[in-house]
Amino acid sequence: MYFDVASTAPLHPVARQALTAALDEGWADPARLYRSGRQARMLLDAARETVAAVLGARADEIAFTASGTQAVQLGMLGALAGNRRRGGHLVHSAVEHSSVLHVAERWGSPRPEAGGEADGGSVSVVPVDRTGRVSADGFAGLLRADTALAVLQSANHEVGTVQPVEEVAGFCREAQVPLLVDAAQSAGRVDVPAGWSLLTASAHKWGGPPGVGVLAVRKGVRYASPLPADEREGGRVPGYVNVPAIVAAAASLRAVRAEAEQENARLHALVERIRARVPQLVPEVEVVGDPVRRLPHIVTFSCLYVDGEVLLTELDRAGFAVSSGSSCTSSTLTPSHVLAAMGVLTEGNVRVSLPYGTAEADVERFLTVLPEVVAGVRAPLGLDLPAPKATTAETLVIDALGKRCPLPVIELAKRIGEVPAGGTVAVLADDEAARLDIPAWCEMRGQEYVGEAPAADFGGDRGSAYLVRRTT
Amino acid sequence: MYFDVASTAPLHPVARQALTAALDEGWADPARLYRSGRQARMLLDAARETVAAVLGARADEIAFTASGTQAVQLGMLGALAGNRRRGGHLVHSAVEHSSVLHVAERWGSPRPEAGGEADGGSVSVVPVDRTGRVSADGFAGLLRADTALAVLQSANHEVGTVQPVEEVAGFCREAQVPLLVDAAQSAGRVDVPAGWSLLTASAHKWGGPPGVGVLAVRKGVRYASPLPADEREGGRVPGYVNVPAIVAAAASLRAVRAEAEQENARLHALVERIRARVPQLVPEVEVVGDPVRRLPHIVTFSCLYVDGEVLLTELDRAGFAVSSGSSCTSSTLTPSHVLAAMGVLTEGNVRVSLPYGTAEADVERFLTVLPEVVAGVRAPLGLDLPAPKATTAETLVIDALGKRCPLPVIELAKRIGEVPAGGTVAVLADDEAARLDIPAWCEMRGQEYVGEAPAADFGGDRGSAYLVRRTT
Repeated sequence: MYFDVASTAPLHPVARQALTAALDEGWADPARLYRSGRQARMLLDAARETVAAVLGARADEIAFTASGTQAVQLGMLGALAGNRRRGGHLVHSAVEHSSVLHVAERWGSPRPEAGGEADGGSVSVVPVDRTGRVSADGFAGLLRADTALAVLQSANHEVGTVQPVEEVAGFCREAQVPLLVDAAQSAGRVDVPAGWSLLTASAHKWGGPPGVGVLAVRKGVRYASPLPADEREGGRVPGYVNVPAIVAAAASLRAVRAEAEQENARLHALVERIRARVPQLVPEVEVVGDPVRRLPHIVTFSCLYVDGEVLLTELDRAGFAVSSGSSCTSSTLTPSHVLAAMGVLTEGNVRVSLPYGTAEADVERFLTVLPEVVAGVRAPLGLDLPAPKATTAETLVIDALGKRCPLPVIELAKRIGEVPAGGTVAVLADDEAARLDIPAWCEMRGQEYVGEAPAADFGGDRGSAYLVRRTT
Repeated sequence: MYFDVASTAPLHPVARQALTAALDEGWADPARLYRSGRQARMLLDAARETVAAVLGARADEIAFTASGTQAVQLGMLGALAGNRRRGGHLVHSAVEHSSVLHVAERWGSPRPEAGGEADGGSVSVVPVDRTGRVSADGFAGLLRADTALAVLQSANHEVGTVQPVEEVAGFCREAQVPLLVDAAQSAGRVDVPAGWSLLTASAHKWGGPPGVGVLAVRKGVRYASPLPADEREGGRVPGYVNVPAIVAAAASLRAVRAEAEQENARLHALVERIRARVPQLVPEVEVVGDPVRRLPHIVTFSCLYVDGEVLLTELDRAGFAVSSGSSCTSSTLTPSHVLAAMGVLTEGNVRVSLPYGTAEADVERFLTVLPEVVAGVRAPLGLDLPAPKATTAETLVIDALGKRCPLPVIELAKRIGEVPAGGTVAVLADDEAARLDIPAWCEMRGQEYVGEAPAADFGGDRGSAYLVRRTT
């Protein structure tokens, strides 16, 4: 069972078909004037239109890179160079992908011997809360007159927490600061949030082949190529264009997007099950990440007294491929900067990310195997651990389907005390008035209204789930 | 007929097979610890061993990039940064690929607003002769105490002229200047010349898939990553590693190298035929590039009074895909910097580059079609052109097979006057003494001894061809 789609997705069947066809039809150099070259160019143009349409961009705003990392590097360095007149200040969240952090690190600590920023840029890092989420106000507070670029991921790659991109984009627009949104984990799965100035993504995360990233730059956004440019990809990405892989990437993006609605709801429910059951099955475990504002397919938890790599190896032996720690530094065994920034447990960390099509039975099998594996790893320690108990990660579901308002609100008021502070309640209701009543009740009582989701995600057969986080 | 393999080679059947297999077996992230990740890592390691063996490098000297251009950019900028203590001086030939020129241009004209070299590097350009070849002494003369990097291609991408890399490498070694050899056009076809400090190549030129370049850095050569690095590819190439394409690239490199000896001789003879016949068939044409020290598969000529793009279009209509002008700027219609540096005609330029397996009959058909196409394009001009005549590009073949020395030398002395100054004579001989006699005669008579080739390249059935260029 491959439960590590957040690292790379298996090639989508549509991508494989498109790749095979494009190796036949689009193998020539698209810059050439003869027939096979013109044909490659047409395929490339069509792929660009497809990707632009799915990501909400214009075709001439899209450049194809060789990877998501290259897209981030070119996007950040190009925007910083293009907006140099504003100043050399960069803002990013503490939980960005390592590719963002690496650029920021070099930007902030000039290494002129390695072609670094000789003037010395400055960098501000936006902290996150315990769920891995930035506050939009907190982000806005770090924007300055000399800020040349702000960077925020659409959703976190390790814990799945969705960031308040549209709100942050609003603040950036007011401050006239370009915002780069790294959509690597969400592109193809959910709509790209509005308001970006630059957008980056990676095809192998959505079932495309490796070797294709996307850098979109909105018309009018200042950009100066950080590398010696040629005439390929609008002067943004030097080097020969990988037409067959781009064609396959576009085909799979369209296919994945079409399957998203159905698969997202299904995976959301499976992840919800993991989130709820793991703390019931494994002692001393912490499920991390935002329980509600999250990607449908990612769930991360940490097990006390256990080494993440050992856990990984044992789960691999049991037939489950999962990831641990920071997604791009696992081979160097650095503790995850994401978990550290969240202030949560970093040891014994497991990230489960479900591919489209994951069967319920395989998730159940994982939930059977996991407690045994963790217990096996802990056994030599001779610890006397308390029985597992629910944590704040659990969501209390109140089924008020078929009940007329104000009954759903009354049930909410009665039972919210059953979850600890920080915990979440999902009220399932099909009376339309609940959509107004529940947020209003939250406002009055100082509780946090989180949002609305399909009731199906929480086991309901109709209606909506209204999510409330207990703050006090 | 696809006669533009110097732009990109059709995917080799072995590459296609390997790609299909590697998409099944090597799709996972090679940095991951579970089974599919380890399997991808093993395939990647094996591919690295293969490429290293063919290119004459150690496996740990090889890093895979996303393109030949990326290899050149990282290689040049990384070596310049790593050798900054020596100074900021860069030397390259006037006929390098545009990717080299673009880096040099930015290095030489600082654009700090685009992350350019703030201190301002300096650049020296080594001129070439009319055949497109640098003189090793001329190259050496530009090396200075503050030279941080020298760059020389193994062979020219537009005219096929082979450069004196080993001699230049000797001078660079003496001067302790690292030498980057851009082997994009020759890798896989002929052995990589010895003496490089950094080596670059591109898989789609040898029948591998697009999306794979090679950057080799010799142990001990100073290198500092010009981009924010991660732990992939030894810290030299940031971003997700494209294992399936790399596996396919390695498989095709090995296959192509195994076929090279036989195919090179065959293509060499076909190109020799084009070199000799075009000036006999088309009036006012100049065949360019070194007639002898050249790649086996490339031939370039320029037709007076004709626009290259029009010629290309007409040849395309007639079923021939060829290239014109500078290999990476044809879409912008800039005159070729290579031809300009050689001081030869740039108008009406056609580059023919033959893929492995090109049939003799197709070359003959090209030689039938070409004069008609050129005449058709010239017709509206109403020119009264002289009949075609042999140019200096023609090689006079003296068949002295079966004749004992000194007869081969006597025939050479008698007939060298039949070619104009600059023209070449190929003496076919099977008496071993000719190997000493002919160079000695050249020395005495002030003619240029060019080298030895298989007599088969010039229609002989045994023995060697001794090549002499008439200098006076």
